[in-house]
Amino acid sequence: MQQLLRVHNVMLSSDGFGAGEGQSLERPFGHADPAVLGAWAFATASWPNRTEPGGTRGLDDHFMREFGRNIGAEIMGRNKFGPQRGPWRDHEWQGWWGDEPPFHTPVFVLTHHERPSFSLSDTTFHFVSGAPATVLEQAKEAADGRDVRLGGGAATIRQFLDADLVDTVHVAVAPVELGAGSRLWTSPDELLDRFHHEVVPSPSGVTHHLFWRR
Amino acid sequence: MQQLLRVHNVMLSSDGFGAGEGQSLERPFGHADPAVLGAWAFATASWPNRTEPGGTRGLDDHFMREFGRNIGAEIMGRNKFGPQRGPWRDHEWQGWWGDEPPFHTPVFVLTHHERPSFSLSDTTFHFVSGAPATVLEQAKEAADGRDVRLGGGAATIRQFLDADLVDTVHVAVAPVELGAGSRLWTSPDELLDRFHHEVVPSPSGVTHHLFWRR
Repeated sequence: MQQLLRVHNVMLSSDGFGAGEGQSLERPFGHADPAVLGAWAFATASWPNRTEPGGTRGLDDHFMREFGRNIGAEIMGRNKFGPQRGPWRDHEWQGWWGDEPPFHTPVFVLTHHERPSFSLSDTTFHFVSGAPATVLEQAKEAADGRDVRLGGGAATIRQFLDADLVDTVHVAVAPVELGAGSRLWTSPDELLDRFHHEVVPSPSGVTHHLFWRR
Repeated sequence: MQQLLRVHNVMLSSDGFGAGEGQSLERPFGHADPAVLGAWAFATASWPNRTEPGGTRGLDDHFMREFGRNIGAEIMGRNKFGPQRGPWRDHEWQGWWGDEPPFHTPVFVLTHHERPSFSLSDTTFHFVSGAPATVLEQAKEAADGRDVRLGGGAATIRQFLDADLVDTVHVAVAPVELGAGSRLWTSPDELLDRFHHEVVPSPSGVTHHLFWRR
Protein backbone atom coordinates (compact mmCIF):
# COMPACT_ATOMS: atom_id res chain seq x y z
CA MET A 1 0.00 0.00 0.00
CA GLN A 2 1.41 3.34 -1.08
CA GLN A 3 1.99 5.86 1.72
CA LEU A 4 0.83 9.31 0.65
CA LEU A 5 1.93 12.76 1.76
CA ARG A 6 -1.36 14.67 2.14
CA VAL A 7 -2.19 18.32 2.73
CA HIS A 8 -5.58 19.08 4.30
CA ASN A 9 -7.62 22.10 5.29
CA VAL A 10 -5.09 24.76 4.37
CA MET A 11 -6.85 28.06 5.00
CA LEU A 12 -5.87 30.56 2.34
CA SER A 13 -6.76 34.10 1.36
CA SER A 14 -8.00 34.75 -2.17
CA ASP A 15 -4.59 36.23 -3.01
CA GLY A 16 -2.76 33.10 -1.87
CA PHE A 17 -1.60 33.76 1.69
CA GLY A 18 -1.94 31.28 4.57
CA ALA A 19 -1.05 33.82 7.26
CA GLY A 20 -0.46 37.55 7.40
CA GLU A 21 2.62 39.54 8.37
CA GLY A 22 3.79 40.03 11.96
CA GLN A 23 3.05 36.60 13.42
CA SER A 24 3.36 36.61 17.21
CA LEU A 25 2.16 34.92 20.37
CA GLU A 26 -0.84 37.23 20.44
CA ARG A 27 -1.48 37.07 16.68
CA PRO A 28 -0.46 33.62 15.41
CA PHE A 29 -1.76 34.52 11.94
CA GLY A 30 -0.20 37.99 11.93
CA HIS A 31 -2.47 40.68 10.50
CA ALA A 32 -4.81 37.98 9.15
CA ASP A 33 -7.93 37.23 11.18
CA PRO A 34 -8.15 33.45 11.72
CA ALA A 35 -11.86 33.81 12.48
CA VAL A 36 -12.35 34.93 8.87
CA LEU A 37 -9.93 32.51 7.20
CA GLY A 38 -11.21 29.57 9.24
CA ALA A 39 -14.89 30.32 9.80
CA TRP A 40 -15.90 27.44 7.51
CA ALA A 41 -13.76 25.00 9.52
CA PHE A 42 -14.71 26.08 13.02
CA ALA A 43 -18.42 25.59 12.17
CA THR A 44 -18.05 21.90 11.28
CA ALA A 45 -18.92 18.93 13.49
CA SER A 46 -15.48 17.42 12.83
CA TRP A 47 -13.35 20.46 13.69
CA PRO A 48 -10.60 18.73 15.72
CA ASN A 49 -10.42 21.45 18.38
CA ARG A 50 -14.20 21.51 18.88
CA THR A 51 -15.11 21.70 22.55
CA GLU A 52 -18.91 21.75 22.29
CA PRO A 53 -21.18 19.23 20.55
CA GLY A 54 -23.00 20.18 17.37
CA GLY A 55 -21.65 21.65 14.14
CA THR A 56 -22.45 21.30 10.47
CA ARG A 57 -22.25 18.00 8.57
CA GLY A 58 -22.31 19.32 5.02
CA LEU A 59 -19.60 19.70 2.40
CA ASP A 60 -17.12 21.54 4.63
CA ASP A 61 -17.41 18.82 7.24
CA HIS A 62 -16.58 16.16 4.66
CA PHE A 63 -13.26 17.89 4.07
CA MET A 64 -12.61 18.31 7.76
CA ARG A 65 -13.13 14.58 8.35
CA GLU A 66 -10.07 13.85 6.20
CA PHE A 67 -7.80 15.44 8.82
CA GLY A 68 -7.24 12.23 10.74
CA ARG A 69 -8.29 9.48 8.31
CA ASN A 70 -5.46 6.98 7.91
CA ILE A 71 -2.87 9.49 9.11
CA GLY A 72 0.11 8.11 11.03
CA ALA A 73 2.33 11.19 11.38
CA GLU A 74 2.42 14.94 10.71
CA ILE A 75 5.17 17.22 9.43
CA MET A 76 4.83 20.90 10.35
CA GLY A 77 6.92 24.03 10.00
CA ARG A 78 8.31 25.68 13.09
CA ASN A 79 6.07 28.70 12.63
CA LYS A 80 3.04 26.46 13.00
CA PHE A 81 4.45 25.05 16.23
CA GLY A 82 5.02 28.42 17.88
CA PRO A 83 5.91 32.09 17.62
CA GLN A 84 9.59 31.71 18.62
CA ARG A 85 12.35 32.20 16.07
CA GLY A 86 16.05 31.27 16.38
CA PRO A 87 17.53 28.97 19.05
CA TRP A 88 15.15 27.65 21.75
CA ARG A 89 15.69 29.76 24.85
CA ASP A 90 13.84 27.27 27.02
CA HIS A 91 11.56 24.30 26.51
CA GLU A 92 8.52 25.70 28.25
CA TRP A 93 6.58 26.34 25.05
CA GLN A 94 4.79 23.12 24.06
CA GLY A 95 2.69 24.34 21.15
CA TRP A 96 -0.66 26.12 20.85
CA TRP A 97 -2.79 23.10 21.63
CA GLY A 98 -2.73 22.55 25.40
CA ASP A 99 -2.44 19.14 27.08
CA GLU A 100 -4.44 17.30 24.40
CA PRO A 101 -3.08 18.25 20.97
CA PRO A 102 -5.40 17.25 18.11
CA PHE A 103 -2.74 15.22 16.25
CA HIS A 104 -2.65 11.88 18.13
CA THR A 105 0.48 10.77 16.23
CA PRO A 106 4.17 11.62 16.05
CA VAL A 107 4.66 15.20 14.78
CA PHE A 108 7.91 16.27 13.11
CA VAL A 109 8.64 19.98 13.59
CA LEU A 110 11.10 21.44 11.08
CA THR A 111 13.78 23.53 12.77
CA HIS A 112 17.50 24.11 12.46
CA HIS A 113 17.76 24.29 16.24
CA GLU A 114 18.03 21.16 18.36
CA ARG A 115 15.47 20.33 20.98
CA PRO A 116 14.57 17.05 22.72
CA SER A 117 11.36 15.24 21.78
CA PHE A 118 8.44 15.39 24.21
CA SER A 119 4.94 13.91 24.45
CA LEU A 120 1.61 15.45 25.34
CA SER A 121 -1.14 12.84 25.66
CA ASP A 122 -0.89 10.65 22.51
CA THR A 123 1.05 13.23 20.46
CA THR A 124 4.88 13.19 20.41
CA PHE A 125 6.75 16.17 18.99
CA HIS A 126 10.13 15.57 17.36
CA PHE A 127 12.38 18.43 16.23
CA VAL A 128 14.21 17.71 13.01
CA SER A 129 16.34 19.44 10.43
CA GLY A 130 17.29 18.04 7.05
CA ALA A 131 16.02 18.12 3.50
CA PRO A 132 12.27 17.59 2.94
CA ALA A 133 12.89 14.13 1.45
CA THR A 134 14.82 13.04 4.55
CA VAL A 135 12.19 14.32 6.95
CA LEU A 136 9.46 12.66 4.90
CA GLU A 137 11.32 9.37 5.16
CA GLN A 138 11.46 9.71 8.96
CA ALA A 139 7.77 10.56 9.12
CA LYS A 140 6.76 7.65 6.88
CA GLU A 141 8.66 5.24 9.05
CA ALA A 142 6.95 6.63 12.16
CA ALA A 143 3.55 6.47 10.42
CA ASP A 144 3.81 2.68 10.33
CA GLY A 145 2.14 2.15 6.96
CA ARG A 146 -0.35 4.98 7.24
CA ASP A 147 -0.18 8.29 5.36
CA VAL A 148 1.67 11.42 6.46
CA ARG A 149 -0.08 14.76 6.78
CA LEU A 150 1.83 17.87 5.79
CA GLY A 151 0.42 20.33 8.30
CA GLY A 152 1.69 23.68 7.03
CA GLY A 153 2.15 26.58 7.14
CA ALA A 154 2.18 27.82 3.59
CA ALA A 155 5.97 28.15 3.31
CA THR A 156 6.47 24.57 4.49
CA ILE A 157 3.92 23.23 2.04
CA ARG A 158 5.54 25.19 -0.76
CA GLN A 159 8.92 23.70 0.17
CA PHE A 160 7.59 20.13 -0.12
CA LEU A 161 5.70 20.95 -3.33
CA ASP A 162 8.88 22.35 -4.86
CA ALA A 163 10.65 19.10 -3.92
CA ASP A 164 7.79 17.21 -5.66
CA LEU A 165 7.00 15.14 -2.56
CA VAL A 166 3.29 15.91 -2.13
CA ASP A 167 0.56 13.51 -3.33
CA THR A 168 -2.73 15.27 -2.53
CA VAL A 169 -3.59 18.85 -1.56
CA HIS A 170 -6.77 20.37 -0.16
CA VAL A 171 -6.92 24.16 0.17
CA ALA A 172 -9.94 26.23 1.26
CA VAL A 173 -9.82 29.73 -0.16
CA ALA A 174 -11.73 32.35 1.85
CA PRO A 175 -13.21 35.44 0.20
CA VAL A 176 -10.73 37.83 1.79
CA GLU A 177 -7.49 39.46 0.58
CA LEU A 178 -4.40 39.76 2.77
CA GLY A 179 -1.98 41.62 0.50
CA ALA A 180 1.12 40.18 2.20
CA GLY A 181 2.26 37.35 4.45
CA SER A 182 3.18 33.69 4.10
CA ARG A 183 2.38 32.78 0.53
CA LEU A 184 1.36 29.38 -0.86
CA TRP A 185 0.88 30.46 -4.45
CA THR A 186 0.25 33.37 -6.76
CA SER A 187 -2.27 31.19 -8.58
CA PRO A 188 -3.38 27.55 -8.21
CA ASP A 189 -2.45 27.17 -11.89
CA GLU A 190 1.17 26.85 -10.75
CA LEU A 191 0.43 23.24 -9.78
CA LEU A 192 -1.39 22.15 -12.94
CA ASP A 193 1.63 20.67 -14.66
CA ARG A 194 1.85 17.99 -11.99
CA PHE A 195 -1.64 17.75 -10.50
CA HIS A 196 -5.26 17.20 -11.44
CA HIS A 197 -7.31 20.10 -10.08
CA GLU A 198 -10.94 20.43 -9.01
CA VAL A 199 -12.58 23.62 -7.76
CA VAL A 200 -15.60 23.17 -5.49
CA PRO A 201 -17.48 26.21 -4.16
CA SER A 202 -19.05 25.61 -0.75
CA PRO A 203 -22.35 27.03 0.49
CA SER A 204 -20.34 28.53 3.39
CA GLY A 205 -18.57 30.94 1.02
CA VAL A 206 -15.13 29.31 0.79
CA THR A 207 -13.91 27.60 -2.37
CA HIS A 208 -12.29 24.22 -1.96
CA HIS A 209 -9.38 23.36 -4.24
CA LEU A 210 -8.41 19.71 -4.62
CA PHE A 211 -5.23 18.48 -6.27
CA TRP A 212 -3.95 14.99 -6.84
CA ARG A 213 -1.00 13.76 -8.85
CA ARG A 214 -1.32 13.24 -12.59
CA MET B 1 -20.37 9.42 21.81
CA GLN B 2 -23.57 9.41 19.79
CA GLN B 3 -23.94 6.51 17.34
CA LEU B 4 -25.29 7.78 14.02
CA LEU B 5 -27.30 6.02 11.33
CA ARG B 6 -25.65 7.20 8.10
CA VAL B 7 -26.59 6.85 4.43
CA HIS B 8 -23.74 7.11 1.91
CA ASN B 9 -23.28 7.07 -1.85
CA VAL B 10 -26.88 6.41 -2.80
CA MET B 11 -26.93 6.49 -6.59
CA LEU B 12 -30.11 8.12 -7.79
CA SER B 13 -31.69 9.17 -11.07
CA SER B 14 -32.74 12.78 -11.52
CA ASP B 15 -36.34 11.69 -11.07
CA GLY B 16 -35.63 10.03 -7.73
CA PHE B 17 -35.14 6.30 -8.46
CA GLY B 18 -32.33 4.19 -7.03
CA ALA B 19 -33.00 1.23 -9.34
CA GLY B 20 -35.20 0.54 -12.33
CA GLU B 21 -37.99 -1.96 -12.83
CA GLY B 22 -37.43 -5.68 -13.39
CA GLN B 23 -34.51 -6.32 -11.04
CA SER B 24 -32.98 -9.75 -11.65
CA LEU B 25 -29.79 -11.77 -11.35
CA GLU B 26 -28.70 -10.49 -14.75
CA ARG B 27 -29.88 -6.92 -14.15
CA PRO B 28 -29.52 -6.08 -10.45
CA PHE B 29 -30.64 -2.50 -11.17
CA GLY B 30 -33.51 -3.52 -13.47
CA HIS B 31 -33.83 -1.36 -16.57
CA ALA B 32 -31.40 1.17 -15.04
CA ASP B 33 -27.81 1.02 -16.22
CA PRO B 34 -25.53 0.95 -13.15
CA ALA B 35 -22.63 2.11 -15.35
CA VAL B 36 -24.51 5.39 -15.84
CA LEU B 37 -25.85 5.80 -12.29
CA GLY B 38 -22.52 4.87 -10.74
CA ALA B 39 -19.93 6.18 -13.20
CA TRP B 40 -18.81 8.86 -10.73
CA ALA B 41 -18.24 6.24 -8.01
CA PHE B 42 -16.46 3.62 -10.06
CA ALA B 43 -13.90 6.22 -11.19
CA THR B 44 -12.76 7.08 -7.66
CA ALA B 45 -9.61 5.82 -5.92
CA SER B 46 -11.69 4.80 -2.89
CA TRP B 47 -14.38 2.75 -4.70
CA PRO B 48 -14.58 -0.24 -2.33
CA ASN B 49 -14.84 -2.82 -5.12
CA ARG B 50 -11.86 -1.38 -7.02
CA THR B 51 -9.57 -4.13 -8.30
CA GLU B 52 -6.94 -2.01 -10.04
CA PRO B 53 -4.84 0.82 -8.59
CA GLY B 54 -5.46 4.42 -9.63
CA GLY B 55 -8.67 6.39 -9.65
CA THR B 56 -9.62 10.01 -9.02
CA ARG B 57 -9.00 11.79 -5.70
CA GLY B 58 -11.24 14.79 -6.19
CA LEU B 59 -14.64 15.69 -4.75
CA ASP B 60 -16.34 12.40 -5.63
CA ASP B 61 -13.57 10.48 -3.91
CA HIS B 62 -14.05 12.48 -0.72
CA PHE B 63 -17.62 11.23 -0.58
CA MET B 64 -16.60 7.68 -1.34
CA ARG B 65 -14.09 7.69 1.54
CA GLU B 66 -16.97 8.09 3.96
CA PHE B 67 -18.22 4.59 3.13
CA GLY B 68 -16.15 2.87 5.81
CA ARG B 69 -15.12 5.70 8.17
CA ASN B 70 -16.15 4.81 11.72
CA ILE B 71 -18.75 2.30 10.51
CA GLY B 72 -19.34 -0.75 12.70
CA ALA B 73 -22.36 -2.37 10.99
CA GLU B 74 -24.58 -2.10 7.93
CA ILE B 75 -28.32 -2.53 7.46
CA MET B 76 -29.47 -3.44 3.95
CA GLY B 77 -32.71 -4.40 2.26
CA ARG B 78 -33.10 -7.88 0.88
CA ASN B 79 -33.17 -6.56 -2.69
CA LYS B 80 -29.65 -5.22 -2.21
CA PHE B 81 -28.50 -8.62 -0.97
CA GLY B 82 -29.82 -10.58 -3.93
CA PRO B 83 -32.42 -11.07 -6.66
CA GLN B 84 -34.47 -13.73 -4.83
CA ARG B 85 -37.93 -12.97 -3.49
CA GLY B 86 -40.02 -15.00 -1.02
CA PRO B 87 -38.74 -17.88 1.14
CA TRP B 88 -35.11 -18.91 0.66
CA ARG B 89 -35.09 -22.04 -1.53
CA ASP B 90 -31.49 -22.77 -0.66
CA HIS B 91 -28.58 -20.99 0.96
CA GLU B 92 -26.24 -21.08 -1.98
CA TRP B 93 -26.62 -17.40 -2.81
CA GLN B 94 -24.17 -15.43 -0.66
CA GLY B 95 -24.58 -11.96 -2.12
CA TRP B 96 -23.14 -10.15 -5.14
CA TRP B 97 -19.72 -9.54 -3.67
CA GLY B 98 -17.72 -12.79 -3.89
CA ASP B 99 -15.48 -14.14 -1.13
CA GLU B 100 -14.35 -10.69 0.04
CA PRO B 101 -17.41 -8.48 0.51
CA PRO B 102 -16.54 -4.78 0.88
CA PHE B 103 -18.37 -4.37 4.21
CA HIS B 104 -15.88 -5.78 6.79
CA THR B 105 -18.51 -5.60 9.56
CA PRO B 106 -21.73 -7.36 10.56
CA VAL B 107 -24.45 -6.77 7.94
CA PHE B 108 -28.14 -7.01 8.82
CA VAL B 109 -30.31 -8.06 5.87
CA LEU B 110 -33.99 -7.24 6.22
CA THR B 111 -36.21 -10.19 5.32
CA HIS B 112 -39.37 -11.81 6.60
CA HIS B 113 -37.90 -15.24 5.82
CA GLU B 114 -35.55 -16.96 8.25
CA ARG B 115 -32.05 -17.88 7.27
CA PRO B 116 -28.96 -18.71 9.36
CA SER B 117 -26.14 -16.16 9.63
CA PHE B 118 -22.94 -16.82 7.69
CA SER B 119 -19.53 -15.19 7.30
CA LEU B 120 -17.43 -14.38 4.26
CA SER B 121 -13.98 -13.11 5.20
CA ASP B 122 -14.54 -10.35 7.80
CA THR B 123 -18.19 -9.73 6.88
CA THR B 124 -21.01 -11.59 8.69
CA PHE B 125 -24.52 -11.53 7.24
CA HIS B 126 -27.45 -11.76 9.65
CA PHE B 127 -31.05 -12.11 8.42
CA VAL B 128 -33.53 -10.19 10.50
CA SER B 129 -37.15 -9.13 10.49
CA GLY B 130 -38.72 -6.59 12.80
CA ALA B 131 -39.47 -2.90 12.84
CA PRO B 132 -36.73 -0.51 11.68
CA ALA B 133 -36.15 0.73 15.25
CA THR B 134 -35.59 -2.83 16.47
CA VAL B 135 -33.19 -3.69 13.69
CA LEU B 136 -31.31 -0.44 14.27
CA GLU B 137 -30.94 -1.37 17.92
CA GLN B 138 -29.44 -4.73 16.95
CA ALA B 139 -27.08 -3.10 14.49
CA LYS B 140 -25.94 -0.44 16.97
CA GLU B 141 -25.12 -3.10 19.51
CA ALA B 142 -23.12 -5.03 16.92
CA ALA B 143 -21.35 -1.82 15.84
CA ASP B 144 -19.70 -1.59 19.26
CA GLY B 145 -19.78 2.19 19.59
CA ARG B 146 -19.23 3.00 15.95
CA ASP B 147 -21.86 4.29 13.52
CA VAL B 148 -24.27 2.20 11.45
CA ARG B 149 -24.48 2.55 7.68
CA LEU B 150 -27.89 2.21 6.07
CA GLY B 151 -26.90 0.59 2.81
CA GLY B 152 -30.09 0.80 0.75
CA GLY B 153 -31.81 0.27 -1.59
CA ALA B 154 -34.08 3.24 -1.95
CA ALA B 155 -37.17 1.56 -0.44
CA THR B 156 -35.21 0.55 2.66
CA ILE B 157 -33.81 4.04 3.13
CA ARG B 158 -37.29 5.50 2.72
CA GLN B 159 -38.59 3.13 5.39
CA PHE B 160 -35.98 4.30 7.92
CA LEU B 161 -36.49 7.95 6.96
CA ASP B 162 -40.23 7.59 7.51
CA ALA B 163 -39.48 6.12 10.96
CA ASP B 164 -37.25 9.19 11.61
CA LEU B 165 -34.21 7.05 12.44
CA VAL B 166 -31.67 8.49 9.98
CA ASP B 167 -29.05 11.05 11.04
CA THR B 168 -27.12 11.87 7.85
CA VAL B 169 -27.81 11.21 4.16
CA HIS B 170 -25.58 11.48 1.11
CA VAL B 171 -27.20 11.00 -2.31
CA ALA B 172 -25.49 11.39 -5.70
CA VAL B 173 -27.98 12.31 -8.41
CA ALA B 174 -26.94 11.33 -11.94
CA PRO B 175 -28.14 13.28 -14.99
CA VAL B 176 -30.43 10.48 -16.21
CA GLU B 177 -34.16 9.81 -15.89
CA LEU B 178 -35.57 6.34 -15.16
CA GLY B 179 -39.32 6.98 -15.21
CA ALA B 180 -40.08 4.07 -12.87
CA GLY B 181 -38.49 1.75 -10.32
CA SER B 182 -37.49 1.87 -6.68
CA ARG B 183 -38.12 5.42 -5.54
CA LEU B 184 -36.33 7.37 -2.80
CA TRP B 185 -38.18 10.64 -3.27
CA THR B 186 -40.22 12.75 -5.64
CA SER B 187 -38.14 15.73 -4.56
CA PRO B 188 -35.36 16.22 -1.99
CA ASP B 189 -37.55 18.96 -0.52
CA GLU B 190 -39.51 16.20 1.20
CA LEU B 191 -36.73 16.00 3.79
CA LEU B 192 -36.33 19.70 4.52
CA ASP B 193 -38.62 19.79 7.53
CA ARG B 194 -36.20 17.57 9.44
CA PHE B 195 -32.84 18.05 7.74
CA HIS B 196 -30.34 20.70 6.74
CA HIS B 197 -29.65 20.34 3.01
CA GLU B 198 -26.65 21.19 0.83
CA VAL B 199 -26.45 20.70 -2.93
CA VAL B 200 -22.96 20.27 -4.38
CA PRO B 201 -22.48 19.84 -8.14
CA SER B 202 -19.45 17.70 -8.99
CA PRO B 203 -17.14 18.17 -11.99
CA SER B 204 -18.03 14.56 -12.90
CA GLY B 205 -21.61 15.55 -13.73
CA VAL B 206 -23.44 14.16 -10.68
CA THR B 207 -24.95 16.40 -8.04
CA HIS B 208 -24.27 15.49 -4.43
CA HIS B 209 -27.04 16.07 -1.90
CA LEU B 210 -26.11 16.19 1.78
CA PHE B 211 -28.60 16.12 4.63
CA TRP B 212 -28.07 16.25 8.36
CA ARG B 213 -30.57 16.59 11.17
CA ARG B 214 -31.82 20.01 12.21
